[in-house]
Order: sequence, then structure tokens, then C-alpha cells
Amino acid sequence: MASSFGESLKVSIYGESHGNGIGALIEGLPAGEIIDFEKLMLFMERRQGGRNSLSTSRKEPDIPEFVSGVLDNRITGFPVCIRIANTNTRSGDYSNLLKNPRPSHADYSAFVKWNGYADMRGGGHFSGRLTAPICAAGGIAKQILERHGIFIGAHLATIGSVSDEMFPMQPSPQLFEQIAQKAFPVISDACGEQMQNEILAAREEMDSIGGTIECMITGLPAGLGDPMFDGIENRLARVLFGIPAVKGVEFGDGFGLSAMRGSQANDPFCVDEAGGIRTATNRNGGILGGITTGMPVRFRIAMKPTPSIGITQNTVSLETKQNTTIEIHGRHDPCIAQRAVPVAEAAAALVTLDVLLTDGKL
Amino acid sequence: MASSFGESLKVSIYGESHGNGIGALIEGLPAGEIIDFEKLMLFMERRQGGRNSLSTSRKEPDIPEFVSGVLDNRITGFPVCIRIANTNTRSGDYSNLLKNPRPSHADYSAFVKWNGYADMRGGGHFSGRLTAPICAAGGIAKQILERHGIFIGAHLATIGSVSDEMFPMQPSPQLFEQIAQKAFPVISDACGEQMQNEILAAREEMDSIGGTIECMITGLPAGLGDPMFDGIENRLARVLFGIPAVKGVEFGDGFGLSAMRGSQANDPFCVDEAGGIRTATNRNGGILGGITTGMPVRFRIAMKPTPSIGITQNTVSLETKQNTTIEIHGRHDPCIAQRAVPVAEAAAALVTLDVLLTDGKL
Amino acid sequence: MASSFGESLKVSIYGESHGNGIGALIEGLPAGEIIDFEKLMLFMERRQGGRNSLSTSRKEPDIPEFVSGVLDNRITGFPVCIRIANTNTRSGDYSNLLKNPRPSHADYSAFVKWNGYADMRGGGHFSGRLTAPICAAGGIAKQILERHGIFIGAHLATIGSVSDEMFPMQPSPQLFEQIAQKAFPVISDACGEQMQNEILAAREEMDSIGGTIECMITGLPAGLGDPMFDGIENRLARVLFGIPAVKGVEFGDGFGLSAMRGSQANDPFCVDEAGGIRTATNRNGGILGGITTGMPVRFRIAMKPTPSIGITQNTVSLETKQNTTIEIHGRHDPCIAQRAVPVAEAAAALVTLDVLLTDGKL
Amino acid sequence: MASSFGESLKVSIYGESHGNGIGALIEGLPAGEIIDFEKLMLFMERRQGGRNSLSTSRKEPDIPEFVSGVLDNRITGFPVCIRIANTNTRSGDYSNLLKNPRPSHADYSAFVKWNGYADMRGGGHFSGRLTAPICAAGGIAKQILERHGIFIGAHLATIGSVSDEMFPMQPSPQLFEQIAQKAFPVISDACGEQMQNEILAAREEMDSIGGTIECMITGLPAGLGDPMFDGIENRLARVLFGIPAVKGVEFGDGFGLSAMRGSQANDPFCVDEAGGIRTATNRNGGILGGITTGMPVRFRIAMKPTPSIGITQNTVSLETKQNTTIEIHGRHDPCIAQRAVPVAEAAAALVTLDVLLTDGKL
Repeated sequence: MASSFGESLKVSIYGESHGNGIGALIEGLPAGEIIDFEKLMLFMERRQGGRNSLSTSRKEPDIPEFVSGVLDNRITGFPVCIRIANTNTRSGDYSNLLKNPRPSHADYSAFVKWNGYADMRGGGHFSGRLTAPICAAGGIAKQILERHGIFIGAHLATIGSVSDEMFPMQPSPQLFEQIAQKAFPVISDACGEQMQNEILAAREEMDSIGGTIECMITGLPAGLGDPMFDGIENRLARVLFGIPAVKGVEFGDGFGLSAMRGSQANDPFCVDEAGGIRTATNRNGGILGGITTGMPVRFRIAMKPTPSIGITQNTVSLETKQNTTIEIHGRHDPCIAQRAVPVAEAAAALVTLDVLLTDGKL
Repeated sequence: MASSFGESLKVSIYGESHGNGIGALIEGLPAGEIIDFEKLMLFMERRQGGRNSLSTSRKEPDIPEFVSGVLDNRITGFPVCIRIANTNTRSGDYSNLLKNPRPSHADYSAFVKWNGYADMRGGGHFSGRLTAPICAAGGIAKQILERHGIFIGAHLATIGSVSDEMFPMQPSPQLFEQIAQKAFPVISDACGEQMQNEILAAREEMDSIGGTIECMITGLPAGLGDPMFDGIENRLARVLFGIPAVKGVEFGDGFGLSAMRGSQANDPFCVDEAGGIRTATNRNGGILGGITTGMPVRFRIAMKPTPSIGITQNTVSLETKQNTTIEIHGRHDPCIAQRAVPVAEAAAALVTLDVLLTDGKL
Repeated sequence: MASSFGESLKVSIYGESHGNGIGALIEGLPAGEIIDFEKLMLFMERRQGGRNSLSTSRKEPDIPEFVSGVLDNRITGFPVCIRIANTNTRSGDYSNLLKNPRPSHADYSAFVKWNGYADMRGGGHFSGRLTAPICAAGGIAKQILERHGIFIGAHLATIGSVSDEMFPMQPSPQLFEQIAQKAFPVISDACGEQMQNEILAAREEMDSIGGTIECMITGLPAGLGDPMFDGIENRLARVLFGIPAVKGVEFGDGFGLSAMRGSQANDPFCVDEAGGIRTATNRNGGILGGITTGMPVRFRIAMKPTPSIGITQNTVSLETKQNTTIEIHGRHDPCIAQRAVPVAEAAAALVTLDVLLTDGKL
Repeated sequence: MASSFGESLKVSIYGESHGNGIGALIEGLPAGEIIDFEKLMLFMERRQGGRNSLSTSRKEPDIPEFVSGVLDNRITGFPVCIRIANTNTRSGDYSNLLKNPRPSHADYSAFVKWNGYADMRGGGHFSGRLTAPICAAGGIAKQILERHGIFIGAHLATIGSVSDEMFPMQPSPQLFEQIAQKAFPVISDACGEQMQNEILAAREEMDSIGGTIECMITGLPAGLGDPMFDGIENRLARVLFGIPAVKGVEFGDGFGLSAMRGSQANDPFCVDEAGGIRTATNRNGGILGGITTGMPVRFRIAMKPTPSIGITQNTVSLETKQNTTIEIHGRHDPCIAQRAVPVAEAAAALVTLDVLLTDGKL
């Protein structure tokens, strides 16, 4: 179904921005694994509003309640239901928008699909707020993976036309940790400052700006995944395109590969110091034929600018079927990409754990 | 499972490059629909080798035999099993490559996954040859869609650093048809000539080159698809990454959107001539929140250069675990992107028909 | 996954008997449908303990809270998360049973599967209490079906060796309603009295007793369902065997058919008064080849006696791996079959609605 | 989809009785496993017509061709496509039946579902002939299971009102083998003789007769399977109801349990000779809460009499919508139950192997 993914580890997301609550139902987490609740809260805080001056002023505690499947901080093996309360909703902010669909939001397409019955206040089930349960589930997956030597990290690769440094070929868990602790998740703080200026400039003009996120998974063995439509790429892409505002996904050098010669793009195999097999370069992002090569998995996602902007935009009235205009007020991030960094990690963690469980490697 | 996709229309691909045959098993095609066999053959020929001087000299007739599910050219409603014989296999070409994995092929990752049991002659189940049954299935889907006013077309958007013109916002079925009839599938033949020079140059240096494909779907109503993980983008991406050599997928302006401001990237709604609702621009590629807006769906895929190149490359011996080199002879396309154009259309057709059936619109 | 079923209507059940709560996550309910909350409560009360003197004294209000997917009593189209609080848990009743598995409960098999991590207090996720969310989901499905002229009813067919009358070939909605309003759900109250005596006799001897339930679905058109493994029978059986204590499922005359001649078992077709096609008898239970015939669907399920009995039983200690004995105290139904009658209806309603949605008939 | 089942081991069945061929597509068979082709042929012959005087005179060689996924008798890890030619079709036998649906066949329900487009010659996709690919797939699964000490056997438990002996609590592989080699698959040949007389009597009167099959799986560890809707019972039932003519499925004592007291039905745990845990009886058929107990899994299926009988029956004309009669000639088994014995084993083998693979036990 639409709001679920995963094979051995099945994650279903529920809730709306302004409903009673949001959450996730997770089947297949390995029994006996411990949840470090404090660490989970730290991870979830990374996506929350109000972390720095650049994001929305809507602040919600986002404390995941474990309704089922957890006893004394341990996974029992039964389905884990997580619930996060919606405490800070101001539906008044949106009420009159429902009749005039906001450009580049799902308002219109959802209106048509559900004949107007969808609860689209605050974006409803499409709201970026729904990434909170993805992070709750993904944060648990991340903890389990780390116990098995698998680490996941991400950073803002670009904001508008400004770039961060790129990850090295074999980033360390320490590097991931350093970025995770920053209020603005970049490798180079100098680049980060320029990026923040870019965001501030957009905000000042009541506009928004897009960005890209680079994410890596290290510590994976070779031979994971499946051919054709269940490769690591396919599974990651299916989930990544479920993060609101993601419009592009590429692996390794991705679109860059399409401009290369084979002699540049191919990753030659070589014997490493320990006698194992690796590739000298990693332009394919650790995946060949959908299956891991043992090199770090690397991908990049493109996020469009926040659709909600204060500038007056053209739209139509669904009631009168006439052209009209709209100005969107309320609490919005001028750049959603920065808050999506842990979401990309969460999605990667859930897919990785699912593949490991499916392949009987955990 | 790995080699299957689809919900209401389930497509499973089977076979290996050098085995007894390849094919597809398709469940869910609507009973009563007619298969125009001649038209299907024309579509399948578009992906075949030997169409022009730029592609592999391996020519196979690729005639799909309908083992089940079809009676007197009509879909009966039962599973449709298609079989294509492998007639032109020269396993000798590959035999000694099996021990020394070819860079950027699935040889090594498949070797690890299946403990050496996978039949990797000619790329096995990973071979580009497996796109023939995708085209057979997709060609049928395309015929059904056209009867309902839905058209799909694609062209080579770039080869190396050379670009074709891009599709207009509302391409006509005639434009799609014109491109489909060309030996080299581009909009601008002038651009196409430069592209072909790029490919020839790569071939002369025993090298290969990558490219991108732009594909569009017109005639879709608004309100199709699902939120989160079953959006049109998610479903298309899952299948598109199953096409060998695809390393990136983007919708609308994709990665380009990440460099824009919201005021540039948003597609304003407006009332069209007939009183319906459309958007003035289509930078989101006809999809918002995973659901169609009624504008044409537009995506682009990045294809890496053919991994098989004549230039000597570094690799390792899986037997001795020592570094060694490899030169790949045999019949290979210097650029696979050109043959993948109808494959992109086929994938788009299958996903589109599946969504229409799932949503009860057909 | 294990605790989910359905294709177009996906139902996932979560929770444990003594955890924070139980519930269901439902995807695919048609947007715009109204939930009559009072009617839903009446339906759910039919499965609750304490309805008459024959069932457990554990009484819980079982009020379903709609966490998501419902706005102003209407289905919005987004996933519906239902939560039911666990208010009346006495874990002390079970604590020492965990080490000594109760015969015919899942204690031992669950202990092995989850290495002792499963929260088996009160039966955990296997508890009959988990049928409450099935009824909540099924009760909603039933309301939707009734608006489309499809009715579902069930009764206790047998308790021990005592039988109720069987349903007529074409039972009326009124008959279903009459049974639903009885404290003891039978057609013949005279038979019902004997059945209750059978239950009382078992309880007096600190024992329990089994039973069977007959269920029917009326108002279905012909041509619903699928061949082979997704027939109406397959789908119903998969869900029905998910009701705790169900050990047999049969359709139409079921096991009785295996003792018949073809000339007795076949249902001859005939033209009915309105010129439509029906069968003169309905020994196949309204299903041929997995697909509805237009006759009422009829099935029967066998429920084993409540495994929890006061009589001393042999078991083993999982700690000492020695033989030992067990006496089960606590609040148990001497016959679970009577409380399972609405659960059978709920399961039938969910499967029926799923099939109708999948086949595009709703 | 309808003609597929399985999670880690996915089996899809295709073909029609009178089409070009029938077969199975199998994903997930473990790479490296050897197929003993001769043994597979012996297994498949058990379900074929013409094995004794009691079955249809339609004899087909039913030789499975491996189109893909097998190299030098070994599973490669890629999807295995099996094809069996249809060589002995006499469509003339059925042509005029298509207009007058045969009672208790799928003719009418399939006609409605597919608007008359389904190829129902010889029963089409519903034909008992489609059990040949189930046996081909299941025969391979059986060989793999036996290498891991898991054995599956079945026998005719009843024909009409005549019973065979029942299996002992722990049947040996030798007993399974003995039955498999008999032309009439029973434990007691004396009982078998009476059963055969029952069949002959039915045939002489141009009638048919039903029967039941008992099947057991030995050698399974405890802790296999899942709760709720993916228990061993749910998964087996889903597949077993896909065998044509099956109308009932029960586990352990099944419907018999519903007439028992708890003190009779419960299986007490005890320590066995080797210090392991077992149950003293096995009335629950080796499954509690959907999960194996380590005791043999035992189930019984009810098969209705062959619907095709020579006696004149009432039916309707789909053309004139008038009552009419039908006499079915052609080559039919007077009792299909006897040929379904290996089919039950095949279904059990496929489900068992799937569960083992899903649970990472193989």
C-alpha cells in the first residue's frame, strides 16, 4: 500500500499534519534489540523545526510513544506501533487555502483523487511533518545497524548554487557523527556559512530555495540486494521519492556518469591490503547490478524549494473555477533540504536493515 | 520478488543472456484487449542490436511467443507468458571473463551473492538482453494506453556532453511517432548527428559513452497515483532503476529544481481554454505529492557508459585473488543509451497501465 | 507481513494483551464513507467479555479512538489508525505461566521463535483480545457493504455435539440482525439453551469446550474474485485462520462434499424469476473456481476449546527443562466460539470489501 | 496476484488446459541446489492421468523444460521458468460446453468475470492440468527439503464414506516412500481396495465421488512461521484452496476439535528422551499460534467430487438465457482426490521451503 514499504522490515506511516497524531507501524524489527531512547530523541531532534534561525518556528516535542512491540526498551518481535502527538497545530493558518490550491503542493492532485474528502489542513498526510515517524523508525534501525558495524551519514551537498565539500571515498563514523552534531549539517563550515546566506537571502525576499543531500552507507558486505527491480537502488529510490519535495535520486556519480566515457566511469577492481577485493574508485556508488560491491553505498537526492512562499502566486479557485491569487502565510522553512538530512539517513537505514534481514545477514 | 513489479498489473522477467530463453509473465492485462502483433514487433525492433552502425552486431529476431493468456490475438484475462528464444549466443566470448570480473558489471557482486552459481555468461540475468521482454510487455501496455488516449514517447536527451532539444510542454502523439521511426531517436537531427559523432569517437578509441533519456506521458487525468511510497515517481523509479546502466532518475526539472528559488520552481495553477485546471508551467513533471496533476508526466534517466570496453582495465582474479588485467572483446554497443529509449517507454507504459488499473480508471 | 492482510484494503493489527494498547492500521477505505460510531460500538460489544454469564469477567470498554484518517466521522482516504486502550490488565495473573508454557497456547512456539523476548503476558499478540481491532476495522467495512446491499451474518452452528439450525439458502438481512441482537447468537433459541448448558457443564468441571461458526455473505454479484491462489476461498481462509483457535475452514458443504457423489454435490444452474442466472442448490457456497457465482457465500470455521482450563495439566519448565504441571487461573471464557461470531463477520466483511475494491466494483 | 504465492520463494503458475503450454515461474530457490531430474519425473508421474484404470485416459508426458534459472542441473539463483507442453488436447470435446456452463465448474463465474474472453476450453486456467506445474515446482522443493531432513507425505484418507487408516503421530520417511510408490496411495491396501470399489461404482453410474487427503510434514524445528495472518496454517490454507476442487482445510484434529473439551484437545508438553521438548499428543497438528511446535505438521483437505459427470444435468444457455440440460462426455477422472495426493505434498513442500527461507533457517 501507498504509505508502507519494506519486505522483511515493513514500515507503514500514518497521520496528518493537523489530526490527532502521526506515527509508524513497524513489523519485522529483530526481537531482543535494545532501543536507546535518549539517542533516538537526539536523532529525531535533528529534523525538528526551530533548531536554528533558518527554519520554521513551529516547534513540537515529537516524543515517540511506543504503543506496542517494545517491553523494557527491548524489541519483542511483535509489530511496533509508534505514536507522536500533534500538539502545535494552528488549523486557522490553512483553512482558506483549501479552496485555492497552493502551487507545487499536493492540494489539487489530492483534491481530485479523494473528491475533496482528504484532510489537507497543513498538507495532511503529505506534510513534511510525516517525516517525524520515518525518523523514529529509521533512528531505531540506525542503532541496530551501528551495533553491526554499519554507519550512515548525510550532509547538505548544495543549497541553490552553493556546494559543500563532498564525502571522501571512505568516510569514517566519526565524520558522520561530527556532521550530525552541527546545527547546520555540512562538512565544511565555510561552505555552510555561504549556504545559510543563500537561505537567508531567499527568506528575506519571502521566497524559498532548493538543495541536494549526499548520503553514504559504510560497512556493508558485498553481495547484498537483488537484481532488476529489487536492487539496492530500486529500493532506496522507492523510499527516497516518498520524502516530500524529493524530485531526483542518483547513485554514485549518477547523472555525472552519463557525460563520461566508460574508461572514466568504470571502477577497476583491486586487491586491498587485507587481501580482500575492492574497487579503486567508487563512481558506481557501491552498487553493481543492484547488488552491493562492498564499497560504501553513495546516493544524492534533489529537493525542490519549499513550495510555500510569501510571494503572491497565481492559482485557481476550486469553488468558482476562476483564476485567482494566493499568498501563503504561516510558519514555513525557507529551505526544507536542511531538515531532510536526517530523513535521508532514516530512509537509508530502514532500507539497509530490510535488505540485511531479507538476505539473512542479520 | 526481485524480477517482478506492479500491483494490479504484475510483470515478472525471467531468463539469462545465454540460457534457453528469456521472457515475461504478466498478470492483470485487461481481458478482451487486442494485441496488434505487427505493431508490437515494430516497437521491439527499436531496441534491437544492429539497427544502425553504432550498435552491437549481435542481431536476434526477438519474436515473442505467447505461451499462455492470449487467444486469437486477444488477452483472455489469464496470466500471459511470453517467451523469446535465445538464438545467437556465443558463450565462448565470455567464458574466461567469469573468473576475472569485468569492471562496472555485476560479475563480482553476483558472484558473491550466489556463491559462484549464477549463470553469468553474457551478463546472465543482468544482461541488457533482458530488456527485450520488458519491451514485449510494455509494447502491449502501450497499445492499450493509446486506445485510451494516453501516449508515451522518449528521445535521447544527451550523449556525453552533447544535447538534443528538449520536449515541448505538451508534445503531440505525432512527435512521439516521428522520433520512434528514426534510426537514431532524437528530436533534432542536427543534434543527433553530433551525438552520433560522439559515439563513433568513443568506439574508435575502444571506449564507450553514457547518455540521458527524456520520456513523457501525455493524456493522463489528474488524481492518479498515491501518496508517500506509491506515488507515480516512486513506482516509475523502482522500475527505471531496473533497466541496466540506469544510475539516476529525475522528474520534471529534477536536480535543476534544487538550484532554484520557490518562485521559479512552483507551477502556478490556471484555468485553461476549456474551463479545466492546468498549470502554466510544468517544472514538477506532472506530479505533485506522488499524484498526477493532469499535466504530462516527464522524467529523465541517466545511463552510464557501456561497461564493456576494449581498453585494458585493472581487475582481480577470483581464483588467485591477485590483481590482473582484462580486455573485453565481443559485440558491444559503444553507447547503450540509444537502445534504451524504447525500454524507458516500455517501463513507463507498464507503470502507467498498472496505476490506471489500480485506481479503477480503466 | 504476518499481522497484515488485504490487497486494496490493507489491514494491519498491532498490540499485545497487556501492553499500552492494541489497534489496527487500515489503508484503502474509500474516501467519503461515513462511520456510524454508535453502530460500530454495538458491533464491537458483541465480541466483548461479560455479555452473559458464560464468558470471562474481564470487561473492557474497547472504545476505538481514530488517530488518523477520519475527519468529522468521514473516511478521508488517508490511512486510518485505530487505537484501543488496554485498561483492565492484571499481569500478575500470568507472570509465572511464562516459564511453564500453557498447553495448546502459543507460549512455547513463540518462546522459541523470539528467543524469549516476546511479551507473552496474557497471550501477548496472540491473545483473543487482538480480535477487538479486527472487529473495529470489520465493523466499518460492514457498514460500507450494507450501503451497497451486501449483508453478512453468522451464528454458532455447534457447541460440542449440540447443533443450531443451519442458515436457509438465502438468509435475509433481518435474520442476521435478529441473531446479532441476541446475547447468545443462534438461530434457534431452543438449540441455544442446550448449547449454553453444554458450556456451563464444561465450566463447572473447570474445563472448556469447542464449537463451530457458520457465516454467510449475501448480495454479492457473480464474477468477483480470482482464480488459483486469490480466490474468495483462499483470501477468506488466510484471514479466518488468523482468528485465534480456528483450526478448520470449509466452504459450502465443505468436508461434507467429500462424502458425496458428483450428482449430489453439483449445483445445477437455472434461470430465476427475474431472468437472471442462479443455482438451484448452493452446496459450493457461492464460489466456483475461487470466483463468486452470485449465490450467497457460505463458510464454516472450527474453533478448538479454550486452551486455558483450570484442570491440572502436564507441561515442562523452560528453565529447568523438567516435566511439571500447571493450573491456569484467571478470567477465561469456557467457550471462545460464542465471542468469535462477530469476529468471523468482521473478517468476512474486510475480505469482501477488499475484493470489491480490487475488482473495481465499489 | 492471483496465480502466485509465496514470500521468499515465489511461485507463479501460468497456462491453460488447451493453450500452447503450461508452467511455473519460481523466484527464490536457493542457488547451488541440485535438481534430480529423474526423481522429479517420478514425482510428477504420480499426479498424471492413466496411472491406473480409475483415472482419465488423457495421458501426457508432462516433461518440464527448464527455460531459465538452471545450469547443469543446478539452481543458479535467477528465476526458474518451467514449461510443460500441451500435447494431447482435444478441444472439440468441450466446444459446445462453453455456451452452457457445466455445473460446479468455473465456467459461469469465469464467463462473468472476464466478459466471455477467458479461454475456458478444457477448464482453461482452472483445469486440474494446472496442478502439473505445481508438482514440478513442489517436486524441486521436496528434494531440497529432504536434504535438510524434512519429509512430506500424503495419502487418501477417505473416498466417499470409506476411510483409510490414519497416519501415526510420527510417520517415517519410509512410510511416505511406500505410499508414494503405490498406484493407489493409501496406507492400508485393504481399505484401498474398498475405496477403489467406491470409485468404480461411481464411474459405472456415470457419476463421480469425493474424498479427503491427509498430509504430514516431519522434521520441522519449533519456532517456524508467524503470528496472525502468516501462520503456517494461513499460508498452507491459501495455497491448498488453490488446488481445484478443494472445499475444506483443517489442521490437526480440525473440525474434530470443535466437538471436544479443552482437557481432551490440549496437547500436554513433556520432555522427550533426548531432553528436548515435545507434546504427548498432537491434536493441534504441530502448530500453535501459527508457529511450529516441533511436532509434525498435519492437515487434511476435502475434495469435492469431479464436477464432470456423464449424467444429464440442468444448466442454462448463456446465449438464450433459457434453462437447458447438459451431458458431459470426454476423459474425466471419476475421483480427482487420488490424483491430488502428490499435489497436496507439492503445495506443502513449497510453503514449507518458503517459510524456512523467510525465517533464515535454510
